[in-house]
Amino acid sequence: MAEAITPRSQDFSQWYTDVVQRAGLADYTPVRGCMVIKPYGYALWENIQKALDQRFKATGHENAYFPLFIPHSFIEKEAGHVEGFSPQLAIVTHGGGEKLDEPLVVRPTSEAIIGHLYSKWIKSYRDLPVLINQWCNVVRWEMRTRLFLRTMEFLWQEGHTAHATYEEAEEEARRMLSIYADFAEKEAAIPVIQGRKSESEKFPGAFMTYTIEAMMGDRKALQSATSHNLGQNFAKAFDIQYLDQSNQLQHCWTTSWGLSTRVVGAIVMAHGDDQGLILPPRLAPIQVVIVPIHKNEDEKAQVMAVVEQIKVLLGEAIRFRVDDREGYTAGWKFNEWELRGVPLRIEIGPKDVAKEQVVLARRDVPGKEGKRFIPQAELAREVPKLLEMIQQELFERAQKFREEHTHEPKSYEEFKSAVEDGFALAFWCGDAACEKAIQEETKATNRCVPLDQSNAKSSSGKCIRCGKPANEKAIFARAY
Amino acid sequence: MAEAITPRSQDFSQWYTDVVQRAGLADYTPVRGCMVIKPYGYALWENIQKALDQRFKATGHENAYFPLFIPHSFIEKEAGHVEGFSPQLAIVTHGGGEKLDEPLVVRPTSEAIIGHLYSKWIKSYRDLPVLINQWCNVVRWEMRTRLFLRTMEFLWQEGHTAHATYEEAEEEARRMLSIYADFAEKEAAIPVIQGRKSESEKFPGAFMTYTIEAMMGDRKALQSATSHNLGQNFAKAFDIQYLDQSNQLQHCWTTSWGLSTRVVGAIVMAHGDDQGLILPPRLAPIQVVIVPIHKNEDEKAQVMAVVEQIKVLLGEAIRFRVDDREGYTAGWKFNEWELRGVPLRIEIGPKDVAKEQVVLARRDVPGKEGKRFIPQAELAREVPKLLEMIQQELFERAQKFREEHTHEPKSYEEFKSAVEDGFALAFWCGDAACEKAIQEETKATNRCVPLDQSNAKSSSGKCIRCGKPANEKAIFARAY
Repeated sequence: MAEAITPRSQDFSQWYTDVVQRAGLADYTPVRGCMVIKPYGYALWENIQKALDQRFKATGHENAYFPLFIPHSFIEKEAGHVEGFSPQLAIVTHGGGEKLDEPLVVRPTSEAIIGHLYSKWIKSYRDLPVLINQWCNVVRWEMRTRLFLRTMEFLWQEGHTAHATYEEAEEEARRMLSIYADFAEKEAAIPVIQGRKSESEKFPGAFMTYTIEAMMGDRKALQSATSHNLGQNFAKAFDIQYLDQSNQLQHCWTTSWGLSTRVVGAIVMAHGDDQGLILPPRLAPIQVVIVPIHKNEDEKAQVMAVVEQIKVLLGEAIRFRVDDREGYTAGWKFNEWELRGVPLRIEIGPKDVAKEQVVLARRDVPGKEGKRFIPQAELAREVPKLLEMIQQELFERAQKFREEHTHEPKSYEEFKSAVEDGFALAFWCGDAACEKAIQEETKATNRCVPLDQSNAKSSSGKCIRCGKPANEKAIFARAY
Repeated sequence: MAEAITPRSQDFSQWYTDVVQRAGLADYTPVRGCMVIKPYGYALWENIQKALDQRFKATGHENAYFPLFIPHSFIEKEAGHVEGFSPQLAIVTHGGGEKLDEPLVVRPTSEAIIGHLYSKWIKSYRDLPVLINQWCNVVRWEMRTRLFLRTMEFLWQEGHTAHATYEEAEEEARRMLSIYADFAEKEAAIPVIQGRKSESEKFPGAFMTYTIEAMMGDRKALQSATSHNLGQNFAKAFDIQYLDQSNQLQHCWTTSWGLSTRVVGAIVMAHGDDQGLILPPRLAPIQVVIVPIHKNEDEKAQVMAVVEQIKVLLGEAIRFRVDDREGYTAGWKFNEWELRGVPLRIEIGPKDVAKEQVVLARRDVPGKEGKRFIPQAELAREVPKLLEMIQQELFERAQKFREEHTHEPKSYEEFKSAVEDGFALAFWCGDAACEKAIQEETKATNRCVPLDQSNAKSSSGKCIRCGKPANEKAIFARAY
């Protein structure tokens, strides 16, 4: 921790890697493309899991666990699916010392194996809907990897549901998208745009892919979760059929939706600053760090006695840690906990003991402005209030930042400048060729067509690039 | 559910498979040796996870996540380890469409990759102890698989710790063993024997393996969790060293400990009966099922109004479900929830509404004896009390059963009969040849040398088989 991290303003990419490693979130391993998620990073992921899992269960979903391995022939059953995932597969060819008759794929996603099992489980309309989620690891062979953002193995949840009608599947896909958005905004304090992916950006095999897109601190976009209406594509490929109320055999309509450890990277990049991480209080593994300050044993005894009282005052609802390590200066500890993004710091020294006060320092407001003295007796009331305030202000700051860097260009020239600065919201003809040309010319990709088109003041216009008629605006940006 | 399950007394093995499948805990998949854990089975596993995770965290452990893949050369570094695991490895030879330079092993356990990383992380005595656990999937190639008990892929937790001294590592290995025992007895209601594995039964690469052994309903033993003092074996193989307080480089002392989804099989086999599962209330996904009984719309309205009141009375602390499905008789529902092992059933019909009562039926006490009427107003008090009582009585019943089938034979002839009936506790010389002969002659294996030798009335005796001097008793039994 002695060495400073690269300033964010100087090299965002290096800053990101420095922060992730030095804050103890994750690290590289000798296994190409595989990271280790260290305890602090995993604790953050556990809080993300809790927040999502509650939302999934509250909407009637149950968790289950499906096999890691998928026979290669299963992956081949859905044409778009195999085309999309083939280049990314890790293949097991030997087991128990022998060559396998059929190679096994390490799951890159589980539509194929789950589709097969749903075809066995679902017989009648009475069995529907099936609403299942799984928390697991998946593997996608990636050539260029970055901690959390793009790794060969990553952790995620993948929901897989089956329904009797198109409408129910569509409702489910949209419901899960709104749950992701609610999670991102309320828990991760990251404002997101809910939208529809273009044909070329959708999930291999999906009928329709929905996404939440967020703006990172370098003004690039990050796809933070996706929800797919799979139509009947997988139901037909895997024979997922049910007898309806008139005893007719029908294909189901299925969905899938996922959010991964990538969102940890989003939290780092949406909120962090030159000092390191800034964690949203609702997800922070440690919400408050208490740093006792003393120069001798007498002072230590006095201060630590008050620290004990403060621990009681904070109670079980607040996740706090006392940093009473010996051999480190208070200043060193301040830096370390700032680097690690702990939302609030309580400093207490002998003078504070005498005055029955503490110093409360906000991570998100640097310097003196973020510091104030408060009476110890007020901690139990003030700390939860302040944590809520920080949560809210982090969100508002990120939202303001996104608004400042979102433009509605009137010409393709303006569009090119817009995507240099952040997001461009512009009419688009819907043509894949036009989308591709934009990418080649500007490095910006079509992030999504926002579901909320109220920003598109008129209901139709002209494509920002080709000038052909267009009736929807899309978000274009450089992206992770 | 129409078809009855095989009676336990008739064919224990088929009964087990019937129960696991028909109760919706798990099922086979087309992927050889891989099971799917269905929502009801997974909810049980989630409750197991919660109960253990709390205990791990309360003793200072943190969770992390290490890579699924391990370079083959890492596995080879510890001689005992590679010998033990080589026949069981699944090997990835291709990734992203290309043959890999070095094949990757799908982790059968993570000592090798974690050992490597600890060697990078640990520098000084200040970094010790390292107390990390991970929840994950592992793969061991198995030729003969059984749902939960032995599957190619399974879910587990594996703790990996590093310490400055032998004593600390030994204390940790024993602490985790006692946590497993506490979990098994308090949460799963399964009495266990804590003991030491013989040389031939210990973990490949361990200095010492501790185990908890439980008796199943067919009187066979099931190893339910293990905790290993790895000595310096892995520290030396992976160069896990630290500078001590005198600035001398020392090898660490490490431990590892694990409990898997196998314990779900233990719960099934320890408590179940001819009707199916009997789940211990503390782990049961559904603790109480409410079955409303009515013959027409009028009755239904009356009954369901009271069901709403009962839901409020039970409150959020009780995990209950109302089975208001149409098209199934009450009797069919009773059978189904008995098969699925729900500890308590509340029946309520129009007569009960009139009398302001309900029927409370205990799953663990079959027939009329387990049923009684209680006033609705007493539910809030009675249900939690009864659930605790059931938890306690399940444990006591299993303990009594184990005691009845544990023998202390005086001769090898008696020993042979003893292991036909259950556990034999007998002096053993400690010789591996003698252990092997016992297995060949009786099919019973040395389960462990119990840590508590108070049953071994004298402090020394003669080996039950060879008659040589022996100073410890061991448990022998046929085992899963």
